[in-house]
Amino acid sequence: MPTPLIDPWHLGFVLWDMLDAEALFGLPAFADHDRAGAGAMIETATKLAEDVFLPSYRLLDDHEPGIENGRVVLPAEIEQSLTAFRDAGFSGMSARAADGGLGLPRAVANAAFLQFQAANISIANYAMLTASAAELLAHHGTPEQKARYMAPMLEGRFHGTMALSEPHAGSSLGDITTAARLLPDGRYAIRGTKMWISGGEHDMGDNIVHLMLARIEGAPAGVRGISLFIVPRKRLDSEGRPSVWNNVALAGLNHKMGQRGTVNTVLNVGEGGDTIGEIIGAPGQGLACMFTMMNEARIGVAMGAVAHASAGYRISLEYARERRQGRHPDAKDPASPQVPLVAHADVRRMLLQQKAAAEGGVALTLYLSKLADLKAAAPGEAARRDAGLLLDFLTPVFKAWVSEECLAANDHAMQVLGGAGYTSDFPLEQHYRDNRLNPIHEGTNGIQSIDLAGRKAVMAEGRALDLFLSRLAETASAASGVTRLQSMAKRLVEMGTAMRTSFDRMAETTRTVGARAALARAHDVMELVGSATFAWIWLEQARVALAGKGTASEPERLRREGLVLTCQDVFSRVVPRADAAAARIVGEAPASLAIDDVMLG
Amino acid sequence: MPTPLIDPWHLGFVLWDMLDAEALFGLPAFADHDRAGAGAMIETATKLAEDVFLPSYRLLDDHEPGIENGRVVLPAEIEQSLTAFRDAGFSGMSARAADGGLGLPRAVANAAFLQFQAANISIANYAMLTASAAELLAHHGTPEQKARYMAPMLEGRFHGTMALSEPHAGSSLGDITTAARLLPDGRYAIRGTKMWISGGEHDMGDNIVHLMLARIEGAPAGVRGISLFIVPRKRLDSEGRPSVWNNVALAGLNHKMGQRGTVNTVLNVGEGGDTIGEIIGAPGQGLACMFTMMNEARIGVAMGAVAHASAGYRISLEYARERRQGRHPDAKDPASPQVPLVAHADVRRMLLQQKAAAEGGVALTLYLSKLADLKAAAPGEAARRDAGLLLDFLTPVFKAWVSEECLAANDHAMQVLGGAGYTSDFPLEQHYRDNRLNPIHEGTNGIQSIDLAGRKAVMAEGRALDLFLSRLAETASAASGVTRLQSMAKRLVEMGTAMRTSFDRMAETTRTVGARAALARAHDVMELVGSATFAWIWLEQARVALAGKGTASEPERLRREGLVLTCQDVFSRVVPRADAAAARIVGEAPASLAIDDVMLG
Repeated sequence: MPTPLIDPWHLGFVLWDMLDAEALFGLPAFADHDRAGAGAMIETATKLAEDVFLPSYRLLDDHEPGIENGRVVLPAEIEQSLTAFRDAGFSGMSARAADGGLGLPRAVANAAFLQFQAANISIANYAMLTASAAELLAHHGTPEQKARYMAPMLEGRFHGTMALSEPHAGSSLGDITTAARLLPDGRYAIRGTKMWISGGEHDMGDNIVHLMLARIEGAPAGVRGISLFIVPRKRLDSEGRPSVWNNVALAGLNHKMGQRGTVNTVLNVGEGGDTIGEIIGAPGQGLACMFTMMNEARIGVAMGAVAHASAGYRISLEYARERRQGRHPDAKDPASPQVPLVAHADVRRMLLQQKAAAEGGVALTLYLSKLADLKAAAPGEAARRDAGLLLDFLTPVFKAWVSEECLAANDHAMQVLGGAGYTSDFPLEQHYRDNRLNPIHEGTNGIQSIDLAGRKAVMAEGRALDLFLSRLAETASAASGVTRLQSMAKRLVEMGTAMRTSFDRMAETTRTVGARAALARAHDVMELVGSATFAWIWLEQARVALAGKGTASEPERLRREGLVLTCQDVFSRVVPRADAAAARIVGEAPASLAIDDVMLG
Repeated sequence: MPTPLIDPWHLGFVLWDMLDAEALFGLPAFADHDRAGAGAMIETATKLAEDVFLPSYRLLDDHEPGIENGRVVLPAEIEQSLTAFRDAGFSGMSARAADGGLGLPRAVANAAFLQFQAANISIANYAMLTASAAELLAHHGTPEQKARYMAPMLEGRFHGTMALSEPHAGSSLGDITTAARLLPDGRYAIRGTKMWISGGEHDMGDNIVHLMLARIEGAPAGVRGISLFIVPRKRLDSEGRPSVWNNVALAGLNHKMGQRGTVNTVLNVGEGGDTIGEIIGAPGQGLACMFTMMNEARIGVAMGAVAHASAGYRISLEYARERRQGRHPDAKDPASPQVPLVAHADVRRMLLQQKAAAEGGVALTLYLSKLADLKAAAPGEAARRDAGLLLDFLTPVFKAWVSEECLAANDHAMQVLGGAGYTSDFPLEQHYRDNRLNPIHEGTNGIQSIDLAGRKAVMAEGRALDLFLSRLAETASAASGVTRLQSMAKRLVEMGTAMRTSFDRMAETTRTVGARAALARAHDVMELVGSATFAWIWLEQARVALAGKGTASEPERLRREGLVLTCQDVFSRVVPRADAAAARIVGEAPASLAIDDVMLG
C-alpha cells in the first residue's frame, strides 16, 4: 500500500531530469555535496517521514494541545518526531556550512522536507518555522546573535517563531502597537499582545526564539516605524544558556479546524515583568528584515499545500484502484463484475486534477527552490539578482494560486471516496481541513494578489515580469518543435501576450483612474499569472518527459506519457481561466467596485 | 446582529415579486391558503429557527451521537427542536390536505424550511427525510400504508429514513444484495446490511420507518430486480401502534466531518430474528418508486447547501462591516483610521460570490418548488407534465452545480474572516465542514452529471431541454429591452445556442464513438448547464429587480440595485465557465479517456 508521501519517481524526474539540480553541485557553495548524497538524504527523509512522522497524524488531530497549570501540553509524539528529525541531521540542512548548517541546495532540502509535510504537517510546521527564523538571523543577525540564537536552532535545540500579528492588526501589520522601550544596555523592554503565534509556547527543546515586530517609542506610524526583535522565551546567560523566564505569557490558545498539532497562541509580553528583546537590523527596518522569514514561510506554506495535495492524491488513487463500483455506460449486463472506480472517466478526471496539482506543485516547489539556490550562489551578480527577482515574483503565485489548486485537489480526493472520504475512517477529511489553512496564513491569498498585482509586477522597472515572460517564451519555443505540444506551446505564447497586455492595462488604470480601481482586479491578475505559471511548468514537464521517453524503460515510458496527458488536462482547464481573467482585467469595472455596502443586504 | 438565516427581504422578493407565488393560491389545490397566511408561516419558521434550532448548532458538532448500551444517544436538543417544529405545525406542511397535511404550496413550505436548514442542518435533516418519506408513501403507498405509516409521519410522531446503500453498493444501487423472502401473509422477511443510513437508529418519536430497497428472491440482477419495502423499527399492531422490535440492529455509526447531529448508521436487518417488511408498489418497481423520495432528497440536499451559503454570507458580511483592517491603496497616511473590511474591493469580491450563491440558490429553490407545485396542481395535463419535465431536468443541476457554488461560498466566508474564520470562535468552519457533505450524499455530483448528460437531456425526446431553453429565451427576450441588461441577455442567448450545440454533439458522440466517450464529458455538461442556469436565474432576478425599482422605497431601491450588480458579477464569472465547458464538449477527447491507470503513478 502506497503511503501518502510524495512519489519518489516524480520527485527524481523533476529534480534531476527537468531541473538538472546536479549542476548545482558544480557551484562552490554546494561543492561539498553530490547527487548520491542528496538522493540518500531524500531517501532518509522519506523513510523517517513514514516511520516516525506519519503514525501520529490522526492522533494530533484528536488530541489538540491544551493548557494544564498554565502550561501548553502537547502530545509527546511531536517532540519525539522532532528529535528524530534533528538526530537524522535535518535541522539546518539548507543553512550555509559557514553558519553551522549542512549547506545542501534548497532544491534538495525542500524535496526532503516535502516528505515530512506530507506525512504530518503539524509537526513539520515547527521545523519549518525554526528553519525560517534561522534563515532570517543568518541574513540580518549580528555574529553574536547568530552564535547565541541561530546556532542552537540549526542544532535543533531552540525553536523559532514569527510573532507579527496582534488582535487588531493581522493583514495590516503597519497598525501593530506592541511597544519597545530602549534600555540603558542597548536592549529593549517589549510590551504588547501578539496573536496567531504558531508554536508560541510549549516545553519542547531548550528555548523558543520569538522574532517579534514592535514599535520603538517615538517611531513614526505605519510600517516605517516597525522594528524587529529577538525575544527569547528564556533569557540567555552570558554563556548562551537559557536561564530565567522572559515574561512571554500565554494568554490563550486558538482552536483551529486543522493543523491542530501546531499549537497556536495568544501571547502577552511585558506584563507583570520585563520582557527583554534584542533588536535585529536597524530601527525602522523591522518589516524589511522580517520579509526574509515571511518569504521563506510563504514558500513553506505553499509546500504544505502541495504536500497535502500529494497525500490526498496517493490515498484516493489507491482507493480508486481497489474499490469496485458500477460499470461502464456501455456495459449492458448487470450481472457482470463491477469495475474499479479508477476505470470511470469522471473519477479519472478528479484524479487528473489532483495529479496536476500535486506534481505541478512539486515541480514549482523545486523550481523556486533552485531559484533560491541561484539567488544565493550563482556565479555573477546579474544571475543572482535575476534569480532573486523571479523568485520574488513567483512567491505570491505559489503561495496563493497553488495553495487553492491544492485545496481543490483534496476536495476531489474526498469526492473520489464518496461518503467514506467524509468520515474519519480515512485521513482525507483531515487533509482537507488541514489544507484549508494554507490560503489564509502567512498573508491571506488576497494579500498575495495585491502583492503580485501592485508590487511584484512593477518592481525593478518590470524586470521580474520580463524574466518570467522570457521563461515562458523559452519553454514555448522548445515545445513548439514537438508535434504533440505545438498547440499548447501556442497557447502559452498567447498567455504571455495576455499577461503583457493585462499588466499594461493595470498600469494605465492605476495612472488614469487610481490604484483602488486597478487593485480591484488583483484577484484576476493572480488568476491569470497563476494559470500561466501552472501551464508553463506543466508544458516544461511534458517537454522534458517526451524528450526522455525514447530511451526510457517501459514503466518509465508510461509515467512520462502520464505527464504529457496530465499537461493536456491542465491546458484544457487553465487556459480558459487565464482567458477569462485577462478579459476581466481589460474589461469594464468589476461589480465589487460599484456595489455599496448597503446594497449587499 | 443579524442571525445566519435567510434574508427575509430577498425571500419575499423572489416568492412574491419574481415568482408571483400568490397566483398559486388561485389553484384549487392551494385555495385554502393565502399570501398573508403563507407569510405568517414563514415568519413563524424564521422565529422558531432562530430561537429553538440555532442555539444548539455548535453543541451538536461538539457532542456527536454515541452508542450507550447498544442504543444511539443523541443530545436532547434534537428532539426538543423537532417537537417544537411539530407543535408549530411544520410537519407535513406541504403534504396534501387529503393526506392529512397542511397543503401549503411547496414554494411556501420550502421558503420556511430553508430557515430551519440555515439554523441547524443536523436537526432539519430528520424533518427533511421524514417529509420525503411521507411524500413517497403519498405517491406509492396503499391507503392502508398511508394510514398506518404516512399519517404518523405527517403528525411528527414517526420518523422516516431512506435505506438504499450497502457496504459494497453505494452509487451502484443495482448491486445491492439485501434479500426479501415472501411470507405466507404477503409480507416479506428482509435480510442484509444497509450503510450510510441517516437517522437510522435513535429513540426519538414513536417509530422509525425505513424505506428500504431489497431484492426479492429470484429477482433478476440489476435495477430491474429491486423492490421497495416499508421496514419499521417497531412493528405496528393491528391498531397501528408500534409494538415489538423488528430486528433492525445497529451495527455501527459513521463518524463524519460535519452534520454530526444527524446520526449516520450501519444497520443489520434480519439477523437473529425476522425483520418484516411490506412491499410498496409492484415487485421490481422499487427504484422507480424510490426516485420520488430521492428527488425530494436531492432538492433537500441542495437547499441545505443554499442554507449554508446564506448563513455564511450573513456571518461574514457582518464581520466585514465590523472588523476594521487596512486602508485603501490610495490612502497615504498610515495614521488615518483603518477602514472596515467591507470597504476593500477584494473582500467585496468574496462577499459578492457568496451573495450570488446564496440568493441565486434561494431563487432556484423557490423556482423548483413552484415547478413541483405546478407539476402537482397546474390546470391541464400538458402544463403539469411540462412542469414535471423541467423539474426533473433541473434537479441534478440544483443538486450538483449549486451545491458546489454554495460550498465555494462558505470557503469565501471563511476567507473573509481570515484566521478567525478557521477557528471555532465563529461558526463558519462548521458551516464549511457541514456543507462539504452536500456534493457527496443523495447521489454524488458525478452521478448527477451523468444523470443530466445521459438521461435528462434526452428524456421525452429532448422536451425537457427544449423547455429549459425556452425559459432562457423568454428571460433573454424580456431583458434585451432593458439597456443595462442587454449585453447579458445576449450572452444568455449565446449560452442557449452553446447548449443546443453541445447536446447535439453529445448525441453524435454517443452514436459514433459510444456512451463512454460521451459521458467522459458529463462534468463539462454539468458545468455548462449549471452556469447557464445560474446566469438565467440571476438575469431574471435583475430584470424583475429593475422593473420594480422605480416605485420602490429608497432602501428597497438599493437592495434591488444590489441584485443587478450581483447579476453583473455572476455573468463575469460564469459566462467564461460555460464557454470553456462548451469548448471541451465539442473539442478533442479529454485526457481522462486516454490516460491509463498505470500512467497515473
